[in-house]
Amino acid sequence: MTHTLVLLRHGESEWNAKNLFTGWVDVALTDQGRSEATRGGRQLVEAGILPDVVHTSLLRRAITTCHLALDEADRHWIPVRRSWRLNERHYGALQGKDKKQTKDEYGEEQFMLWRRSFDVPPPPIDPDDQYSQAGDPRYADLGAEMPATECLKDVIARMLPYWESAVVPDLQAGNVVLIAAHGNSLRAIVKHLDGISDEDIAGLNIPTGMPLVYELDDQMRPTTPGGRYLDPEAAADAAAAVANQGR
Amino acid sequence: MTHTLVLLRHGESEWNAKNLFTGWVDVALTDQGRSEATRGGRQLVEAGILPDVVHTSLLRRAITTCHLALDEADRHWIPVRRSWRLNERHYGALQGKDKKQTKDEYGEEQFMLWRRSFDVPPPPIDPDDQYSQAGDPRYADLGAEMPATECLKDVIARMLPYWESAVVPDLQAGNVVLIAAHGNSLRAIVKHLDGISDEDIAGLNIPTGMPLVYELDDQMRPTTPGGRYLDPEAAADAAAAVANQGR
Repeated sequence: MTHTLVLLRHGESEWNAKNLFTGWVDVALTDQGRSEATRGGRQLVEAGILPDVVHTSLLRRAITTCHLALDEADRHWIPVRRSWRLNERHYGALQGKDKKQTKDEYGEEQFMLWRRSFDVPPPPIDPDDQYSQAGDPRYADLGAEMPATECLKDVIARMLPYWESAVVPDLQAGNVVLIAAHGNSLRAIVKHLDGISDEDIAGLNIPTGMPLVYELDDQMRPTTPGGRYLDPEAAADAAAAVANQGR
Repeated sequence: MTHTLVLLRHGESEWNAKNLFTGWVDVALTDQGRSEATRGGRQLVEAGILPDVVHTSLLRRAITTCHLALDEADRHWIPVRRSWRLNERHYGALQGKDKKQTKDEYGEEQFMLWRRSFDVPPPPIDPDDQYSQAGDPRYADLGAEMPATECLKDVIARMLPYWESAVVPDLQAGNVVLIAAHGNSLRAIVKHLDGISDEDIAGLNIPTGMPLVYELDDQMRPTTPGGRYLDPEAAADAAAAVANQGR
């Protein structure tokens, strides 16, 4: 018997639309983002893949995506679990900055390093910065684990304990598990599942609002590496568009 | 130290608007119902009452109300727990029937007995009825507890185990607890908290989308009987409107 895992990246947010670095800033979905979430839910219904439990980050764009997709799939009533460990990568001092402006200011090389380097985080955000989450009550329990910036390596390190302690038990209990989260927290999961190298993960782009389905064996290894998109053609187009952001 | 409990009845649903008996039929909110939910969230913010955990039924109109109210209050990220024990009263064979038509057909006395009697349930719904929930996967675990009709006494009997085992522990842990639910499951809670008699509960109408706040002592007794609405004047008007439904 295999275990079914569905990854769903949130739809377009207000800051995606404005081309700003978002990270942990808690922006809402745009109308297009809401449509993407609903479309994702419809794809699940059409494929007959019905989540039994959902995990989300603590950020509004993932939570609303989860709500809209599950409502469309008539699975709005399933148990919900949330964790900051599924949050988007913390973008440090870049949070709130324009992507194109940042590229012009720091140059293409530095820009791509911050965006895609495995282990070089942007400069940390000042706790007094308007886009810092220092003091946000939802992170009050984090203590020293509260990040001020993160690279993908950091995201993997804080995501994995949640994967092992919360997601895997749900899968092992026979549940179809949906994770509604973000570009980088989902890349962290995919890297772990598919054993992608630190170098190659930079090239992996997960499109928004497109359910990515993994069947996992009892050792939580994908039976088909890379999983499958329910609409592969649209997913490939969308991934290419993500890769071009900020260009 | 007191414990804070907030009760929130879902806003107008599509079947409220059509004046149909709804019960466990899983209808959506109207645009007005969505506005009511958002307004409820705004009232919480203005009163500085910020839920730490929310409990909902398994029905879309309560779940969406919870989502919209918490999103407005910037508390969308708090833990969510759900239970069928917070569902609306099961309306038996009346589910899907027009309220006015039912009154004309059976007479005012029978109509009011079904609507407001403490211990007389409507006739049970046939499992093959299009508005039966027999076979609905969300209730698959209920077994013999799955109702085919309910009176308020039945609602209290199935609600109380959840109150004791899930809500009270959250309150005792120091959380501000929000319950987003339905007219009759909330009446069941209010009856329990305020020690209202079987006769008098018939006269209690809880308005939609208006947070009702209870401060409870360590024995879970209200410090102010009846709690308080954050907008008492609007709540009184709305409760009077509910009482006039079907007239």
